Amino acid sequence: MTTDYRRLRVALLGAGAVGSQVASLLRQHADELADRAGARLELVGIAVRDLDAPRETEFPRELLTTDAEQLILGADIVIELMGGIEPAREYLLQAIGAGADVVTANKALLATHGPEIFDAADRVGAQVYYEAAAAGAIPIIRPLRDSLAGDRVVRIMGIVNGTTNYILDRMDTEGAEFGDVLADAQALGYAEADPTADVEGYDAAQKAAILASLAFHTAVPLDAVHREGITHIDKAMMDAARRAGQVIKLLAICERLPESADGAAGESISVRVYPALVSREHPLATVHGANNAVFVQAEAAGDLMFYGAGAGGVQTASAVLGDVVSAARRHIAGGVGVGESTRANLPVVPIGRVITSYQITLEVDDEPGVLATVAGILSEGRVSIATLEQTVVADAASGGTARIVIGTHTAREQDLSDTVDRLAASGVVERVVSVLRVEGD
Amino acid sequence: MTTDYRRLRVALLGAGAVGSQVASLLRQHADELADRAGARLELVGIAVRDLDAPRETEFPRELLTTDAEQLILGADIVIELMGGIEPAREYLLQAIGAGADVVTANKALLATHGPEIFDAADRVGAQVYYEAAAAGAIPIIRPLRDSLAGDRVVRIMGIVNGTTNYILDRMDTEGAEFGDVLADAQALGYAEADPTADVEGYDAAQKAAILASLAFHTAVPLDAVHREGITHIDKAMMDAARRAGQVIKLLAICERLPESADGAAGESISVRVYPALVSREHPLATVHGANNAVFVQAEAAGDLMFYGAGAGGVQTASAVLGDVVSAARRHIAGGVGVGESTRANLPVVPIGRVITSYQITLEVDDEPGVLATVAGILSEGRVSIATLEQTVVADAASGGTARIVIGTHTAREQDLSDTVDRLAASGVVERVVSVLRVEGD
Repeated sequence: MTTDYRRLRVALLGAGAVGSQVASLLRQHADELADRAGARLELVGIAVRDLDAPRETEFPRELLTTDAEQLILGADIVIELMGGIEPAREYLLQAIGAGADVVTANKALLATHGPEIFDAADRVGAQVYYEAAAAGAIPIIRPLRDSLAGDRVVRIMGIVNGTTNYILDRMDTEGAEFGDVLADAQALGYAEADPTADVEGYDAAQKAAILASLAFHTAVPLDAVHREGITHIDKAMMDAARRAGQVIKLLAICERLPESADGAAGESISVRVYPALVSREHPLATVHGANNAVFVQAEAAGDLMFYGAGAGGVQTASAVLGDVVSAARRHIAGGVGVGESTRANLPVVPIGRVITSYQITLEVDDEPGVLATVAGILSEGRVSIATLEQTVVADAASGGTARIVIGTHTAREQDLSDTVDRLAASGVVERVVSVLRVEGD
Repeated sequence: MTTDYRRLRVALLGAGAVGSQVASLLRQHADELADRAGARLELVGIAVRDLDAPRETEFPRELLTTDAEQLILGADIVIELMGGIEPAREYLLQAIGAGADVVTANKALLATHGPEIFDAADRVGAQVYYEAAAAGAIPIIRPLRDSLAGDRVVRIMGIVNGTTNYILDRMDTEGAEFGDVLADAQALGYAEADPTADVEGYDAAQKAAILASLAFHTAVPLDAVHREGITHIDKAMMDAARRAGQVIKLLAICERLPESADGAAGESISVRVYPALVSREHPLATVHGANNAVFVQAEAAGDLMFYGAGAGGVQTASAVLGDVVSAARRHIAGGVGVGESTRANLPVVPIGRVITSYQITLEVDDEPGVLATVAGILSEGRVSIATLEQTVVADAASGGTARIVIGTHTAREQDLSDTVDRLAASGVVERVVSVLRVEGD
């Protein structure tokens, strides 16, 4: 192990949960990394905002600097783990301009300014590595960009947010309510004090935009991603799902559609995040706790699934270091980087045009003719009934209420949503208990 | 899509189940592939042994040739899908020597002559792509070589043979006997007329050698892989496993051990293929039918799993085409290829030094003192009992036989095997019903 390797200067921006692990592993495994990269990866500095903030792992104080721009200037590889849009964006563009390859785990930045950063890299033949930005430690970027490059991805269904999977899994296994599990998750550090980014699906939407861009060779703007969170999922919905052999998961879905956005010839895509019913027989149903998984359907390869830890400092550091080794190999080998292909540039359809199946749960007056009225409204709305189950929830003495659970055949979202509005306004429906999409069948 | 791309000449060796799909997809998706590769992939010829043999897909007859050497000479990328050792080895070396990048799905060749082929590529800066050689359509080579390059793989447990998983899964779900399911699998085309390569674990052993070489940066010779098949697995073992919340899977296990082969300081590895008991809670237990999955444990990344179709012409063709696109990008980008690292070159320990836990099922005389004798032999043999269950299988009238099922703590294979020999010879044991390793706990 005494090979006299060329040295590559590695600059690290950020020393938080992931950054401090990256710094630690870079030093701890220096010899092995050198053998694998074909270059000695010399950590030349770590840019931080506060030199005196407490760190999760130990490293020499003299590596710390507050002058990120100076640090970037002398680096061969720049690792950006600061998070946020600015100044991360500015620093990445500077690094690329200065001839460095860049590694980032910044999903918010890539989901909003990806095309700008990829274009900048393309112009100088640099490469942007971001394995850690989509599903933490799970290798999904390389499989999509390289392994499936000769195939056509049809559909991705991902559990890409650990916090919400943790919450939904505990609601499922313990029969607990959302609020209680969330509070517990916050106490245990699985959820942030302000959980909005996770529970409202913002984090998953960023990852969906990144995955869809890559899979469909299309620049997907974040605001084209339909997003719904899980705060309305309650114990009753979970229990009903369990009884039906299903589980509710927050899914990031990226789908290739055979027709274009305006109904004309040509393909389009849909990118959406929402909680959905998934059969317990589906591989995604077996993803427990804070784990993530990305289920990919491709024309030739068929069904693939990638499973692992979606977050965590040291787990995400593994993905970052894999990228650093790739960047180093490229530096040594020479040649230009593989750019992000947006050549297909398919239109992203609005949610109203998405076709899937649904489960509608209604509370209705328990009177003769109600079922016929409900069925009639569905039929007029072009929503075809696949399964229907009616149960009495309160007898005539207490008002006469029945519960109807309808499983639909595939329908167009706009038709479904209009139909549910008409059901709610029909006079026979006391309450629309829930409307959930059914995915993965 | 009218970009004037550079043309790369692609030569295909072999037009069997995978080769004919590759030829078909190369032509069918020519425009998309060109956009992704940054080069037009021109299929210049297909080398076959018999010009008139029937083919699974249609392609122009003028592409066929019996002169593989001539075809190789003019190619930028050579895809070898002939299988077998010779002349595949000779052709790959010729292709590398002529400056081509090569793509192969030939696990038998890589498991036996991998180092020779990788060395030849290293010397000229070419690259060997073999995503399809380890787990069919499942992207596992890139994750191990690139994504986990900054991490340390501790353990791989793979279901890497579809035929045996299909057989074991049907034995498990239908309670059928091995012979009946095998005959059915042969009739359905899931198993070959001569099933030896699958059911005796040879195919899995080749894949284990490839995965271990990559994961541990070590040239693992095929004869260092311990190999056992599944022909001795019967309905009774399957039923017992099911009752205990387990399932029997044929596993390819690649493991990093903290001590060296001779007990001295320094790491070593174990590479082995055998049927083992796996808890139904383990992700590998959910792999049904002819599917494959590779479970990877890494120091930083934690547990990862890669799941998908392990075989099939069109599925494997997806992996091959991904490699072809990668090879084309590298050709366009310039620079030298990433070689196979064997710098760690860890010793491979013999099976006797492997440490795992076991389940031993014995039929014993149902007499006083027998349990004490059995426990004494285990204790002398340094095999520690974790669980023990005794049931009477035949009462005193019919000979007095009891069945003892022993779950052990982890023990060294040599100790276990010596102990089982001593049990068999002890006079109180009528029959050693089964000895199975327990993995994944």
